[in-house]
This record gives sequence, structure tokens and C-alpha cells, in this order.
Amino acid sequence: MIDSAWLGTQRLPEVTVHASGALAQTIRAELRQTRRFRTDVQVAVCTLARVRETPLWQEVEAAVPEHGLGVEGFVVVRRGNDLVVAAEGGHGLLYGYFYLLRYFEWMSGDFTVVEQPAVPIRMLDHWDEVSGTVRRGYSGASIFFRDGQVVEDLTRVRSYARLLASIGINAVALPTAELPDVARLAGVFREYGIAVSLAVDFTDDPRDERVARWWSATLARVYEVVPDLGGLLVRAGADAEGANLLGRAVAPYGGTVFWRVSGAEQWLDGLDWRDRRADRARAAYDQFIPLDGRFEENVVLQVPHGPSEFQVREPVAPLLGELQETVFGLELQVTQEFSGQQRDLCYLGPWWREILQFDTTGGARSTVADRIGAVVAVSNVGDDPNWTGHKLAQSNLYAVGRLAWDPAADPVSLLHEWAAATFAMDDRTRGELVTIMSGSWRTYEQYTAPLGVGYMVAPETHYGPSVNGYEYSTRGSHHFADRDGVGVDRTVKTGSGFTGQYPEPLASLYEDVSSCPDELLLFFHHVPYDHRLHSGTTVLQHIYDTHFQGYAEVEAMAARWRVIAERFEPVVRENITDRFEAQLANAREWRDQVNTFFYRLSGVPDAQGRTIHR
Amino acid sequence: MIDSAWLGTQRLPEVTVHASGALAQTIRAELRQTRRFRTDVQVAVCTLARVRETPLWQEVEAAVPEHGLGVEGFVVVRRGNDLVVAAEGGHGLLYGYFYLLRYFEWMSGDFTVVEQPAVPIRMLDHWDEVSGTVRRGYSGASIFFRDGQVVEDLTRVRSYARLLASIGINAVALPTAELPDVARLAGVFREYGIAVSLAVDFTDDPRDERVARWWSATLARVYEVVPDLGGLLVRAGADAEGANLLGRAVAPYGGTVFWRVSGAEQWLDGLDWRDRRADRARAAYDQFIPLDGRFEENVVLQVPHGPSEFQVREPVAPLLGELQETVFGLELQVTQEFSGQQRDLCYLGPWWREILQFDTTGGARSTVADRIGAVVAVSNVGDDPNWTGHKLAQSNLYAVGRLAWDPAADPVSLLHEWAAATFAMDDRTRGELVTIMSGSWRTYEQYTAPLGVGYMVAPETHYGPSVNGYEYSTRGSHHFADRDGVGVDRTVKTGSGFTGQYPEPLASLYEDVSSCPDELLLFFHHVPYDHRLHSGTTVLQHIYDTHFQGYAEVEAMAARWRVIAERFEPVVRENITDRFEAQLANAREWRDQVNTFFYRLSGVPDAQGRTIHR
Repeated sequence: MIDSAWLGTQRLPEVTVHASGALAQTIRAELRQTRRFRTDVQVAVCTLARVRETPLWQEVEAAVPEHGLGVEGFVVVRRGNDLVVAAEGGHGLLYGYFYLLRYFEWMSGDFTVVEQPAVPIRMLDHWDEVSGTVRRGYSGASIFFRDGQVVEDLTRVRSYARLLASIGINAVALPTAELPDVARLAGVFREYGIAVSLAVDFTDDPRDERVARWWSATLARVYEVVPDLGGLLVRAGADAEGANLLGRAVAPYGGTVFWRVSGAEQWLDGLDWRDRRADRARAAYDQFIPLDGRFEENVVLQVPHGPSEFQVREPVAPLLGELQETVFGLELQVTQEFSGQQRDLCYLGPWWREILQFDTTGGARSTVADRIGAVVAVSNVGDDPNWTGHKLAQSNLYAVGRLAWDPAADPVSLLHEWAAATFAMDDRTRGELVTIMSGSWRTYEQYTAPLGVGYMVAPETHYGPSVNGYEYSTRGSHHFADRDGVGVDRTVKTGSGFTGQYPEPLASLYEDVSSCPDELLLFFHHVPYDHRLHSGTTVLQHIYDTHFQGYAEVEAMAARWRVIAERFEPVVRENITDRFEAQLANAREWRDQVNTFFYRLSGVPDAQGRTIHR
Repeated sequence: MIDSAWLGTQRLPEVTVHASGALAQTIRAELRQTRRFRTDVQVAVCTLARVRETPLWQEVEAAVPEHGLGVEGFVVVRRGNDLVVAAEGGHGLLYGYFYLLRYFEWMSGDFTVVEQPAVPIRMLDHWDEVSGTVRRGYSGASIFFRDGQVVEDLTRVRSYARLLASIGINAVALPTAELPDVARLAGVFREYGIAVSLAVDFTDDPRDERVARWWSATLARVYEVVPDLGGLLVRAGADAEGANLLGRAVAPYGGTVFWRVSGAEQWLDGLDWRDRRADRARAAYDQFIPLDGRFEENVVLQVPHGPSEFQVREPVAPLLGELQETVFGLELQVTQEFSGQQRDLCYLGPWWREILQFDTTGGARSTVADRIGAVVAVSNVGDDPNWTGHKLAQSNLYAVGRLAWDPAADPVSLLHEWAAATFAMDDRTRGELVTIMSGSWRTYEQYTAPLGVGYMVAPETHYGPSVNGYEYSTRGSHHFADRDGVGVDRTVKTGSGFTGQYPEPLASLYEDVSSCPDELLLFFHHVPYDHRLHSGTTVLQHIYDTHFQGYAEVEAMAARWRVIAERFEPVVRENITDRFEAQLANAREWRDQVNTFFYRLSGVPDAQGRTIHR
């Protein structure tokens, strides 16, 4: 029995569909499996071309913006007992249909809504292997592959495609498989308006003409079978020439090349910890700014949200503000590699919204969301019965889709939406659940690496603390803690110069230790333990405080959960209860190891006399 | 082409064999493939029963000790051009034959030698998996197994059996396989007087009678096919009852049960680093002393040489002195898990001899070698062309066999023996090679964990430095370094009480910080960085000094090697040159990470102003 996730509780009235085509068929099929709702409201889902078949055609036509709705936009109009969802074609109707499904029971009174996605490409990347394992996956095996082949029964893949379409996802990247297998997967996703791209490694010499010919010929064969293939995602290797070669190879078919910045060569190992100026955080900017403007139009650079890649706190990557003549996307991790691996509860919606709304100019209102052409998020699903290992981790998948569509959406409201759609429960329980979840990202931040310094995780697994785990590694994820202080000097004046990759006034904001935001202080500066934060406490006491606080917050979350747990069905209750147990153990290790580590270094006890082990 | 290791250079004169039986056949087969030596010396290999067929029968009979030669002992007598090797039967003759092979070209003048092994069971344990991988193996895949089965071609296994017999090994433990496969392997080892034991996990309930019946029935089938099976090696699980159950099951066939102390349950994870009294070093003694005297006669406890298991410096396990009514063996690691993994040169002969000669009474002359009934050493071979990855690591396999036979042997002399038998080279080159190798254990100790504190290795791999790698782990391998000092307080007075597991005067020797030997100081005591060693330097300066020194010694070893490298065949030259490159890189990381770690903690610079990175 597949967990229905956030498509489990909704009900709709009778709906008539005034449209044809494959996606209209999908809507009809969806309607057949949706629970009914006895009401006088008459709903029509209708293309604009046929809107005059509905009673509200004038209101709909008046609502369509001057520049049109676009392929994916839609209008919802309600007047009394009439409600019309209208769009130019199937894609818009499908999103309009899921909008209706999501909100119908909350709607009242007359209204007119126009929705269009803020970001054109909203993609989920899948680090599945055809062997069936999922790299950095914490929810079981692949839902797509087993033993080198695509699974026979695609029921689960179809359920997944529905879930994705319902939150506005329009693209997925999957590992490359045999052509008939690719065609089968693409067929399922196509039903839900989702384009499949294929992930490839590109290590050939792009200056060799035979390479270009090979790719052209190969892609011709692929597009013959899957004419709407989204394109290629370059996982590793390649340079600008390589990306352009692939771009030209897919251009005749309208395909796109997604090039992972973090799969590029200079991001690999090889930094010397002895050299305090060597800084992996610089790599993306240093490598790609010189290439700005040298890419084919259909090449999209895929830029991780921060220079340390997916920490729970780090600055926004300067590349996201500084690329001027290149199309680029924002890469996020829904899979919780560095944020609790779906054992610890960590709702990342607030973090992603902060990134999307970050003003890359430091004042001129050009946010990350304004600048990107794509959101590409690494999926967190596997074949665990509840998709995501931790049932509540479904909320991250939900939020990333909704935020990619609407980067201004309020993360707490999204939690309410998600919870109401996922669980049949009273408003008070939902309110309590949302309260438990909404602060979990900050809680996770508190008990792990302090003040933006990042990592301190167990090498390889990236779960649980190992304060010195990467300290002497060639990955360059250091904190430089010694008996006097801690942090990475990334200033232009005395450090690695990373702050100089930002435009003013951001460069100065981060460069100056007195203006640098507390939460990023140790990312940008090496400071003595008695350095005072804007908050008034010293860095050392802040470390102690947040670690005691973080653990206490997990205890409170678990305690509050126990109060409402009985209201959930047993399988959900046990899953979440077990995860809180694991999280408590993890938070305790983090608290104690981090506190002891800094106590051993500094010799300074906790001002409040709480227990720090020697 | 299989590397002939130390059976490559020898020559013999004509030899006549006056004996019958399978092992005499083996000697004849060996003789057929040995290079000949033109000389007037007449050699006879002869059982005592037939010694009167030889000219020196009177000298031989006079040489036989009153209590006899035993099954494995032998006599070698030379008078003028007559030389006789005599023994009671095949085993003694085989060892006598290999003695002859080893020394013939070095022999001159008349002499009489009587040799008997000091330790009755001299076994190599193999951590191979039937899948073909070797746990903690650094020399390629298994020579025994591939893809779940014993390899078809046993040529390599036969070569290995020869090598083992030539150094006095008389037992091997192998993973359990299908019965016909076990029989094939046992057949090959049998040709060389080596008994095969099978490694098993025992997790059943020994109080369940059905379990005893199952084992009896199963072993009856095994012994029907392999009547000379050595017995069982219990890798994991079991308690005294379980060991005794297995002991009774193999007793009718003369079998032995080897029970790995470190595979017993209390040795597993689960220590809390927060509790400074929790001490994994205590586990073996605490668990097994209460069981002393409760074992069947044919159960042999297999005790690792030290409480931290296979570090390059640690005290001798107190269990080795304190078990009174139990047969026990000494477990050593030839595979270099914690000593450079056959990338770094680390000749362990001196370390093993120190352990074997350790006086467990602290003055009454009862050495480890006197007390043990077995030496069980984890093999370092794999299917690498040269058996051991690093060609020079063959010397460790050689030394462990020779020391198990004669624990008083001089490790440097063993190196000379090994080098002369392995390489065709002039005496000066051999002298230089032996000099490079003989101090390599101390060199390795210098650049790794200081003063007996152990570990500081990368978790999981156990190669390369990670000073804090196990600091907060449940494995209990800590150093407790803080800004003021370092080391583990294992005293009775203020620490874990481990020193109390030794008898006097050892207990007081280790308990008192002023008498504790420098090289074990941090194993037994937590001391401030400015604590003065008997050597006169402070602990901190000692750490710096030894790490600079250790690296410099590797540089010198590599430089000296380059001088003689040309005298070796290319494949050997390249192998060793490459390994020195790797060792230099490793030693540099160790030097710099350890020095920086302690500099960051202490804030005290090197007294000689050498570079320590911040």
C-alpha cells in the first residue's frame, strides 16, 4: 500500500472538463479517483478557447493578463455556485486542477485568482543508481531501478509523478538507462506534464570532432523515441566547451543542458589544509565568472545555494548574484544530507525561502528568485512505505515544489497546507503539528555546527557529529579551532578573499567583523572565543547556549509530539516517535561533543554551570 | 608468475631421503625443484628409525635429548663432508629439510644442532571472505576464494603452504566453505604438515541440547572427510559454555577450539566517552579472569597482544600473565591494520619479540613465550603478485613464523635470513637493506600516535591520521587531549583501574607516573604538556620532536633505498619505490596533523622553531 502523502484527504464536487488532449485525460482520470463532496457548487475546468461554454467566461477573460497566461498559468474564478478553472492548454489546466484540489474545501465567497509560476523550470534531480541504491538517499532503495534495470511495475512511479505535478514540478532528472526503459519512464511522467532529462558524465574531449558526432547521433536516436526529452544533466566532468557541445546536440529538439557546477573539476579534492588562503568556497565563482557569456543559450548552470553545498547555514553563493549573461538555476537538497538525513526532523522551507528571497545586490531588490531560470532540487524519496523515511520529511518535498512555483510563499502556511492535505485531523492538532515542525530547521542549526561554520559532521556518512572530521581533509571544510578562537578568515584583507566575490554593500557587510551577521560570523571570520556577538554573548558562550538550547528544543518537540501522537494512525505514530528517539540521541551527541570539544580547547566553563563533560 | 618470496635463491647439494610417508614425498618433490649445488658434501634426510643407514648415526643418536625430539623437532649433524638431518617422522624431517635449505650455504665446519619449536601451535588466521575479499587485507583479493567458492587452481595455495611450512607454521584458520572445498584446501595444506581449522560464528544458545546435537552431527560429517582437521576458530559470539560445547564436539577427533577473546561480546561497541572510568582496555581481563579454569582442555583462548589490539605501541595484555588454568595463545597481526597497511614499511619483528619476551611477572622470568600454547597471527597475504602488496612486507610473514618457532630469535638476524633467501644480492646491499628495514617499526611509531596513546587513525580505514577520529566514539579509543594535557588515566587511584590488572611489581610500575616507562606514559596517565619524560624533554616537545624525527627517518629510508634500488629487478624496484612515495606522503600528513593538533591546543611553539602549521 503506497502512502498517499498529500493527496490523501481531498474531496471535490462534480467537475466538468472542457478540454481535450492527453493532460485533460489525466485530469479526468484524477477526478475518477477523487472522493466526492456533496455541494451545490458547479466546477468547470476549461481551456480559454472553450471558456464560453462556461457561465463565467466574461470574468475569466477579464482576468487573463495582457501578456497572457503562458503555458503553465491558470485562472480560477468563482461567483456564487459557479467556479471555473481556465488555462491556455493542458499544463495550465493540470496545475489549475491541483490548485482546486488543494484549496477547494478552504474556499469561500467570490474570488478571482491568477497563478503563474515564478520559475520556468522546476526540476527534481534523482541521485539514484541503476543498481537500485540511492546516493545520499535515506528512504530505502530506488523507486525507479532495481538490479540495473527499470522496475517492471511503474505504479509507484506514477504515484510519484502525480505528487510532483500537484506541487508544480515540471521536470525530473534520472540516471541514464536503456532506451526502452527511458521511454517507459518518460511515458509515465508525460502523463503529468513532467519532462524527463537524463544525467550523464561527460569526460570526453569536446575538441574531438568524433565526440560531437557521437553525441549527435546518439541523441537523435533518443529523441526519436522520446521526442519531449527535457535534455541532459551533466553530473560530472565537462567544461564550457563540453557543455556547449552537448547544448548544440540537443538544441534541434528544444532540449536543455543542465550543468552541475559542483560536478565540475575544480570542485574536487586537493586543497591543502596547511594553506589558510586555500578556500573551496571560492571555487564556483573563480571558475565560472570567467566563462559568463560563453555558453549556448540552452545551457543552464546549476548552482548550489551556498559555497559549502547544502549546509543548514551558509551565505548565499555569490555566483547567484554575479552571473550576468548565463542562464542558471538554483540547486537545493531536499534529501537531508547535512540536515538530519530524515532521521532528525528538519523542515527546510524557511531556509529555502530565505535563500530565494536573498537580495543579491544587498539593497537594489534583485533576489535569487528574480534571477534564476530553474530550481533543481535533489529528491528525498525512496521505496520506504512513506516515501521519505521520516513521514514528516514529506513536507520538504512539498515545500520545495510550492516554493519553486511561488518563492514568496510563506513556509508556515505551506506546512499548514501540507498537513491538512496529508492528515485527517482537527485544526488544533494541525496547529500543534505545524508548531512542532516550523522551527525544526533552527533547532537543527542550534545543536550542530555553530555560527555558519558548517560541517563538523562524521566524514562519509555526514550524519552525527565529528567536530574535527574534515578539519585536516583535502575537502577544505575547516573551522581552524584552536585554544584561542575559531572560524575561517575569508576576508579580503587577511583571509581567503572570498568576501570580495560579493558586490557592495554585501562585500563590506561580510568583510567587517563588526557588521557581519552573527549567524554567519564563523563562516567569514576567525575570532577569539571572547568575541562578543551582536546578541551580546561571547562566541564561546553562544556555542554552549545554542547546544544546550538545541537539545532542549528537541526534547520539547518530542514531548509535544507525544501529546498529539495518539491522534495519528499507528504506522505514522510509530514512525515519528521512533525518529524523535533517534533525533534525541543524535542531538545529545552533538550537544556534548561540540561543547566538550570547545571546552577542552578553551578551558572556559559554561557561565550557567551546566554539565560539560571534560 | 608467482613471486617465490623467500624460497627463490637457495641451492642444495645432492640429498638422499631415508624415510617414507606423505611428508617424505613432499621433501622429495621439493628436492626436485630445488637448484643444485656442486659440492662434495653428502646430505641424508632420515628418520631416527633408519638413522643407522647414515654414516653419522652415532652422532645423531647422541644428540637426541633424553625426552626425545618430539613430533616436530629435528637434529642436524655435520662431520666433514657428511651431513645428516634426522627426526622422528615426517613433520620433523620437513622442518629439518627447510632448515637445511635456509642455512646450507652459510654452514661451515662440523656442528650439531637440535631444534624444537618453543610453541606447539603456530597458526595463521585468514580474514578472507568466501566472496573473495579480505577483511583488513592490503594485498589484493583472497588467494583461496572467489565469488563464494574456493578457487579452481590451487597452485597458488600450494605455493603459500610451502612458504608457511618453510618458516615453521603448522596450522591455518580459514573461513568455512562447502565440505568438498574444505577437503581440497586441507589436502594441499596437508602436503606441508599444516592443519586447517575452520572459522565459525557461534551465536546459538549453548544450553539448548539441539544445538549440541547439531554441532556433533555436523562435525562428524566434516571429520569423516577431513580427519585431521585442526578444529574450529570461533570468530565471534560464544561464551564459556559455547566454547566448551564446541570443544566437546571436536574432542573425539583430537580437535581444538580457538576462541577469539576480541570476538567475545563485551568487546563490542557501547562505551560512553563521557565516562572517563569506562575503559575498553579492561574488557578482556574483566571478562576472562572469572572464567579461568572453566574451559575444556582443548579450548584455547586467543588473546590479542595488547589491550588496544594491534597498536604499534601498547602494554602487553595483563591476561597473558594472569590466566592460570586455561590454555591460551598470543594473537598478533601480520596484516598491518594499524601499522601502515603494507603501504608504509614497518617491520614488526622487533615489536613481536619484545612482546614474546615480556616478563609477565615483572622480574620472576615468566615470559609471554613461556606461557603460551599457541601463536595465532592474522596473515598479510593476498593475490597481489608479490603476496603482500609491499614486497618488503613479506619479511613480517617470515618473522612471525620464525619467532613462533623460536621466540628468542634476533629480529635483525631474521631480516638477514629473509633478505638473503629472497634476493640474489651482495652482502653489502643486504646489509644496507636490513638497515633500512630494521628500524622501520620505531620510525612508524615516531610519526604516528605518541607515547603509547594509540589510535589517532582515520576511522574505518585505519590508515592515515585523524587525531580525533575515535575521540568521541563508543569504541573507547580516546586520548582526552585538552588545552592543558593529554593521555588516559588508567591508574587505580584516579583512573579506570586498569593498572590493577597487573601483578606487582608491574602494577606499581605503571601506576606511578614517575616510574611508568616513557613509551607507555600516555597509555597509563593523563599528564600536562610540560610534564618531563625520563628522557628530559617535555611531553609536548617530545611529540613535536618525534614527529619531525619520524618524517626525517622516512626521508632517509627512501633516500637510502634509492641508492640500492638499481640492484633489484625492475618489478621489485618500482614496487618499493612507489611505496616509499606513499609512505612519505603519509608520514608528512601524520607529522603535520599531529603537530598542528597539539599546537592548536597548547599554543606552545616548537622549541627549535621548525614549521608547525597553525
